[in-house]
Amino acid sequence: MRHAFRAQLDALHGGIADLCDHAGSAMGHATEALLQADLQIAEGVIDRYSDIAYLCASLESDALVILARQAPVAGDLRAVVSSLKDVADLQRMGALATHVARISRRRHPAVAVPAEVAGYFGEMGRIAVRLSEDTKNVVLARDPDQAAQLNVDDEAMDELHRELFAQVMNPGWSHGTVTAVDVTLLSRYYERFADHAVDVANRVIYQATGKQQR
Amino acid sequence: MRHAFRAQLDALHGGIADLCDHAGSAMGHATEALLQADLQIAEGVIDRYSDIAYLCASLESDALVILARQAPVAGDLRAVVSSLKDVADLQRMGALATHVARISRRRHPAVAVPAEVAGYFGEMGRIAVRLSEDTKNVVLARDPDQAAQLNVDDEAMDELHRELFAQVMNPGWSHGTVTAVDVTLLSRYYERFADHAVDVANRVIYQATGKQQR
Repeated sequence: MRHAFRAQLDALHGGIADLCDHAGSAMGHATEALLQADLQIAEGVIDRYSDIAYLCASLESDALVILARQAPVAGDLRAVVSSLKDVADLQRMGALATHVARISRRRHPAVAVPAEVAGYFGEMGRIAVRLSEDTKNVVLARDPDQAAQLNVDDEAMDELHRELFAQVMNPGWSHGTVTAVDVTLLSRYYERFADHAVDVANRVIYQATGKQQR
Repeated sequence: MRHAFRAQLDALHGGIADLCDHAGSAMGHATEALLQADLQIAEGVIDRYSDIAYLCASLESDALVILARQAPVAGDLRAVVSSLKDVADLQRMGALATHVARISRRRHPAVAVPAEVAGYFGEMGRIAVRLSEDTKNVVLARDPDQAAQLNVDDEAMDELHRELFAQVMNPGWSHGTVTAVDVTLLSRYYERFADHAVDVANRVIYQATGKQQR
């Protein structure tokens, strides 16, 4: 029973690690679509969301089977319930990537973000991909020490979000209202993406150490 | 065992209904703070979020106790897991109300939204409160027929969100970039609030009927 439980939980964590790959890849491609106004890449991100949703539904169903068959208690129970929350966070990360892709598609063939702030989004995209990879590693290794880089990256994302917001709010902003709104929403999507990744990682760390991260 | 399970699940649903009250009240007050630039009301919404977070943590802990002690299967298991998701949605609704309150606070003593679009936010606030009440009724009565009004209200909210977005994006928008960004973010907070309420209600309906709503 115990052995079966561990194997099923490991399989669940493996699926969550796959989801980290999907979410990171979606945000990486969405960023590419955004910066190059590439409609095909944007459409690809939007289309592949159904794969993410399908994988999420399937992992959730696996978690329910574990709960029903193994009736875990204490830490084992919390591990399965945490996995359910991880899946919800990762599905939302996938959805946020499609939101970025939709803005690229709406402005195509123009680039949605002015050259002046493109560098911010390039950096946000890189951080989003790295956060997904680091979250995957935390999920697989259950190693709380891997969390440090995640918090550095999350803070870097927040700082970029604040800087972009300040640029848009600056009276010297010269790119008009439509672009200001696009930039604000895009920046928020990246920041939320990072928040969800960190929520997943912190949940793993909490289980490993019993210490709440934030 | 069966009787104890029902009683514990009912208590959980009662707590979720209370959370609907808290979330609805938070968004109602946040709207009042927004339209009247009332700093005290805005601060109240932000302060009371800790009550919502506390109630959520306590309900989640109750759900884990039910899973551990009763080891429910099939529909009973899905009911408890659904409750966990409801709690997450309702916590997010409370957080979105604080986001609205924070924008009011940031612009105080000015009113964050121009008089021209204040009516939209008044209506969005009323719909948000009504959605919270209807969701509470669905949670308590487990009655799928109560869902019709929820979908009407959700569509009305989406339509208001689209109309506001069109106004902000219109070349004739005369209130500047900062206000455009505020209006866009505020509108999105209300729309997301409605989405989460409908997610809770649809989950109840799915359990009662086996039919997915969207």
